[in-house]
Amino acid sequence: MKFPTNLKPMVPHTSDTLSLERQKANFSTSEMDVFMNGKEYIERKQKALNILRAEPEIFDQRDIYFMSRTEKIEKSLKQEKRIIELLRERKIDSTDISMLYSILDWSSPFDLSRGMFMPTIESQGTEEQKEVFLKPALDYRITGCYAQTEMGHGSNLRGLETTATFIEETDEFEVNSPTLTSTKWWIGSLGIVSTHACVMAQVHVKGKHIGMFPIIVPIRSLIDHKPLPGVTVGDIGPKMGFNTMDNGFLSLNKVRVPRFNMLQKYITVSRDGTVSRPSNINPRVTYGTMVLIRASIASNMGKQLAKAVTVAVRYTSVRRQFGEPGKPETPVLDYAIVQYRVIPLLAKTYAMIGMSHEFFAQYEKTNALIKQGDFSKLKEMHAVSCGLKRWTSETAVYGIDTCRHVCGGHGYSMFSGLNEFFVNNYPNIIWEGDNYVLAKQTAMYLVKSAHALRTGESVEANDTTEMIRKLMNLDNKLSPKQLFTWSGKSGKEISNDNSVLLDLLGCRAVSVIHDLAVKIYRKGQSWEDSSIASQLVATTHSDYIVCLYFSRHIAKLPASSPLVPVLDILFKISALSFLTRNTGDLFSLRGEASMTREQINGLESEYIRYIKIARDQAVPLVDALGVPDEKLNSSLGKYDGNVYEDMMERVLQEPLNRDGSGDAIRKHFYDKYIGPTLHHKSKGSSRL
Amino acid sequence: MKFPTNLKPMVPHTSDTLSLERQKANFSTSEMDVFMNGKEYIERKQKALNILRAEPEIFDQRDIYFMSRTEKIEKSLKQEKRIIELLRERKIDSTDISMLYSILDWSSPFDLSRGMFMPTIESQGTEEQKEVFLKPALDYRITGCYAQTEMGHGSNLRGLETTATFIEETDEFEVNSPTLTSTKWWIGSLGIVSTHACVMAQVHVKGKHIGMFPIIVPIRSLIDHKPLPGVTVGDIGPKMGFNTMDNGFLSLNKVRVPRFNMLQKYITVSRDGTVSRPSNINPRVTYGTMVLIRASIASNMGKQLAKAVTVAVRYTSVRRQFGEPGKPETPVLDYAIVQYRVIPLLAKTYAMIGMSHEFFAQYEKTNALIKQGDFSKLKEMHAVSCGLKRWTSETAVYGIDTCRHVCGGHGYSMFSGLNEFFVNNYPNIIWEGDNYVLAKQTAMYLVKSAHALRTGESVEANDTTEMIRKLMNLDNKLSPKQLFTWSGKSGKEISNDNSVLLDLLGCRAVSVIHDLAVKIYRKGQSWEDSSIASQLVATTHSDYIVCLYFSRHIAKLPASSPLVPVLDILFKISALSFLTRNTGDLFSLRGEASMTREQINGLESEYIRYIKIARDQAVPLVDALGVPDEKLNSSLGKYDGNVYEDMMERVLQEPLNRDGSGDAIRKHFYDKYIGPTLHHKSKGSSRL
Repeated sequence: MKFPTNLKPMVPHTSDTLSLERQKANFSTSEMDVFMNGKEYIERKQKALNILRAEPEIFDQRDIYFMSRTEKIEKSLKQEKRIIELLRERKIDSTDISMLYSILDWSSPFDLSRGMFMPTIESQGTEEQKEVFLKPALDYRITGCYAQTEMGHGSNLRGLETTATFIEETDEFEVNSPTLTSTKWWIGSLGIVSTHACVMAQVHVKGKHIGMFPIIVPIRSLIDHKPLPGVTVGDIGPKMGFNTMDNGFLSLNKVRVPRFNMLQKYITVSRDGTVSRPSNINPRVTYGTMVLIRASIASNMGKQLAKAVTVAVRYTSVRRQFGEPGKPETPVLDYAIVQYRVIPLLAKTYAMIGMSHEFFAQYEKTNALIKQGDFSKLKEMHAVSCGLKRWTSETAVYGIDTCRHVCGGHGYSMFSGLNEFFVNNYPNIIWEGDNYVLAKQTAMYLVKSAHALRTGESVEANDTTEMIRKLMNLDNKLSPKQLFTWSGKSGKEISNDNSVLLDLLGCRAVSVIHDLAVKIYRKGQSWEDSSIASQLVATTHSDYIVCLYFSRHIAKLPASSPLVPVLDILFKISALSFLTRNTGDLFSLRGEASMTREQINGLESEYIRYIKIARDQAVPLVDALGVPDEKLNSSLGKYDGNVYEDMMERVLQEPLNRDGSGDAIRKHFYDKYIGPTLHHKSKGSSRL
Repeated sequence: MKFPTNLKPMVPHTSDTLSLERQKANFSTSEMDVFMNGKEYIERKQKALNILRAEPEIFDQRDIYFMSRTEKIEKSLKQEKRIIELLRERKIDSTDISMLYSILDWSSPFDLSRGMFMPTIESQGTEEQKEVFLKPALDYRITGCYAQTEMGHGSNLRGLETTATFIEETDEFEVNSPTLTSTKWWIGSLGIVSTHACVMAQVHVKGKHIGMFPIIVPIRSLIDHKPLPGVTVGDIGPKMGFNTMDNGFLSLNKVRVPRFNMLQKYITVSRDGTVSRPSNINPRVTYGTMVLIRASIASNMGKQLAKAVTVAVRYTSVRRQFGEPGKPETPVLDYAIVQYRVIPLLAKTYAMIGMSHEFFAQYEKTNALIKQGDFSKLKEMHAVSCGLKRWTSETAVYGIDTCRHVCGGHGYSMFSGLNEFFVNNYPNIIWEGDNYVLAKQTAMYLVKSAHALRTGESVEANDTTEMIRKLMNLDNKLSPKQLFTWSGKSGKEISNDNSVLLDLLGCRAVSVIHDLAVKIYRKGQSWEDSSIASQLVATTHSDYIVCLYFSRHIAKLPASSPLVPVLDILFKISALSFLTRNTGDLFSLRGEASMTREQINGLESEYIRYIKIARDQAVPLVDALGVPDEKLNSSLGKYDGNVYEDMMERVLQEPLNRDGSGDAIRKHFYDKYIGPTLHHKSKGSSRL
């Protein structure tokens, strides 16, 4: 199919409009890129782009929107094969692999071998086990998965039904899936690829249940990749997204493995069935893995939202609708209702990326302390990571949705780049602790800490406890004016001072923590009945932490830096978006902390005012996030602004439109269905 | 692939758990079904089910989750061909067709011929034009689409670039797409199927632009279905959903059609180019079509949400997680945080379906008046339909998302039935007026009416103006106690009395309408700057209308009806969910209308209390909605509760798992990608 080429040009052209937007920048986008993403990240990204661009026949992703699931898996396997070759040729390292997949922006069936199988052996295997299982996995001579979730069982480890029974006669474990619901399910990298599974099973030794432990089970032949005896394994079928991943199921019919295959760093079963646990192991260490995974999600979500915001800002800058007669239509980003939806997401993207630097630094500090046997920072890190995993994934997933919606009809096309993207990011709100469940983890820590502080128990000092200590004025050091820094100030004055905004965010969090603590400690309300209130507690705490960490990241710049003014505005927009989300929270502040209706309305006006101010910097700000066209994979978000030309180019690749094959499909449809329908007893009509 | 069949049974079995839930019913589900859906609807549904079940080789939808886009279109064409045969055999009528597609739960490439092409000719064509174009379309000898939207132009009709120029010499119109952005785009039924397009074009006659009018353009040969000369037409490619629909593009290179082809009911161009408009036509008539389409969406959304709620309630009733040691795990619907997300959606489903009966009755009344030349009810109907289209689509689309999320990991599988469903329903928030744009339409009517009432202008009486008149106490007839019926009452007392809840909803709406009216009429704020505030105005008004109409539907029952108590609870849950959505709205009520913190907190507690009360009726309540398994197409929502057996059955149909073809695909993957990767310089390991 050919599209006419002799058409009149578009005036003004979308690419020219985008260029004009870029000229409005009041800061250097490349300096901002370095400040937000870091030099190392930018260099690695460039290296990855060079690799991908060198082999478009393998790595170009423009065709994925037309592919069936099977075709997508094949494409992903082809890419993975090449990436492992590059690794073996020492042209890339494992960090490069993450960067490559971040740009390719989908997952590989080998991901879980890298992401879960190997780390589990690393952390829970003995040196000998690492030699036997980890080394060949690192060499990609075997590939594995982590099989925990079952068809009928999710988060509750105790509910898992898979058993592993020690058989003393043969020095083996017999691993068994007794029921349909015990079938391992959802296991990434299992359905097509894995040779080995790290199976979480209820371990029984000499008739005694000793707990849930990981056991390495070979599942496919290393000769021909066929399932081994007793193993039923397959793919769990199509999903909302993540369709390059071979999430699989696994039923084990009394499969025997050597006793050696149970990972034995934290537990040992000897030849005669004696169970022992090394005495120098703190059980809280395993806790660390969960914290790491949640911290990784929280750190990654800002970078993901950056893609959606880039598409939305660029497209709403060039998409025109309505306006004054006789003039070109108005770019939709000029409309308040569009700004109101897009600009806060841009601000939150910056807040999340800024926050992640500080958060990761804290994570590494905590980890270093743990290695020295100091667990004092682990509890807050756990609470913060649960909260931030929940908060960032919620913000990013529904932020992507808003970005798609604001693109109008074309947002619904796969060529927007935001549809695969939405569904592939969606699981972040479910896995590694469902967001609603995680809120309770965070709330419990906060409420217990507040209670401990009030009753004078000793509590470790950290950002969270300091916030509570200060705003509950437990030291009685501060006057109400010093404590509630917003009192007597207008909405404008409050918004003008970032430290007042932070105080207000902190106070709002402490207020809802206090309300829940009263219900629990004075009125005896159960935690189960507190699960709804826990959502607000966790959200307000995360709001505070995100702004606190973001402000620390900004503070790394000298006050005179030309980057500061625009970052300051993004900080205010973020803080004000949280404060005005449900003004009932502000109306609920009590006593000397309370706010007037005028103050609250003033914050709402300031919020809209700052959004308007940021509008002109929107395009430079998304440019500075540095998301390459390859990752965007979007007609609407293209850097050069050639939106409609790109869309037309992609449309001509639609299988139904292709010359030859497309013609044949349409002829088949016509001959078989459309023609017979239209020509039934045709009476014709001369004027048709 | 065979799955082991000798496994231990599940105890308790999910189907037994669901049966126990059904025994808790305190009302008759079949009586409720009749009350909510109506006898005629139920009978039509049964007729449709009989037709679908008789020909499973055509109509069974279980395989759709495995299909590529091309395969889906083929399946849909096959179904459409059979449905038109049934129509010609007079076994079904056009209402049956809607019901069949409602159960098949996807769209057909012939839909827009029925839904837009024919209605446009019907309403804007002359009798002669109907004879020539409508009659063969009704016979399916031609099939058409409605081509308005262009690649670069959406809602703003004035911005459309397609032209139609009268050529007096040949008595023709020359229809032309001058630019890339003028390409007709998103046009349903155009990409593969349509023989004709009803093209909206800027019409020029004798050098004068006379406006935008519809012109019938033949686009594909009635002999071989090939595009006619000057026509470039194709499919716009893959979308987030709606992938059975051949949304298409169309570029017309100076295509000539007879002058006759311009629909001439509202405008006539004579042989010599004289333009005339019939004098007896009210321009507001065309308005009516938009109102009808929005009314249809608003009426349909409750029925759509019913599907998602059915899946979520049934699955959360049988899905177990955590609980006391030694007992079966607890059904997740027993957890407050799950109830809190699902039960209000169940209540809103009832509210929306109940509302739609009243709404449609009002629509028909308005329409009957219009036919008599009385347009007095059209303005409110327009405002209400904009508001309800926005409110119901938002509630349904994000309600479907919540239902999916609450199903946990399995919600993400296509077998949940909620993923195709979400993406297919999503366009309802965008098309027929984007929801954010529609809010302004509603808000303008409300604010202007309030202003007119206050300044003593004459205003037509209707539900909306009566609400404003009453709560602004313009007649000065009522004391504050009579007006603000909640004053002095506890949250419990307020919730106990549905009329007080309605008053409160009305007052909240009037309060935000008043705030915006003050800004616009006293402070001179522009409507553009009011677009953000308009969202809240529209939402609170729709909240009120939904509850008002729902209460009228309930009032059709005798007070002694055994259906009333549970409907009463669903009403309260709906009303309380709206009132507590952002309590800032309640804190903002002023003067004698104002509420105390205790009252507001009381409403929040009552909300949760009523949710708990409704929990035990949840399964009977979804049963009563009468959504058949065929429409659910969901393992999780199956009526018989055999969730996991059904999931396993479906998984074995996954192309990657099938015997023969699946084995071949996996062998190909192994031989080409996985094997070469694993066997690279293999060193082996005796213990693997």
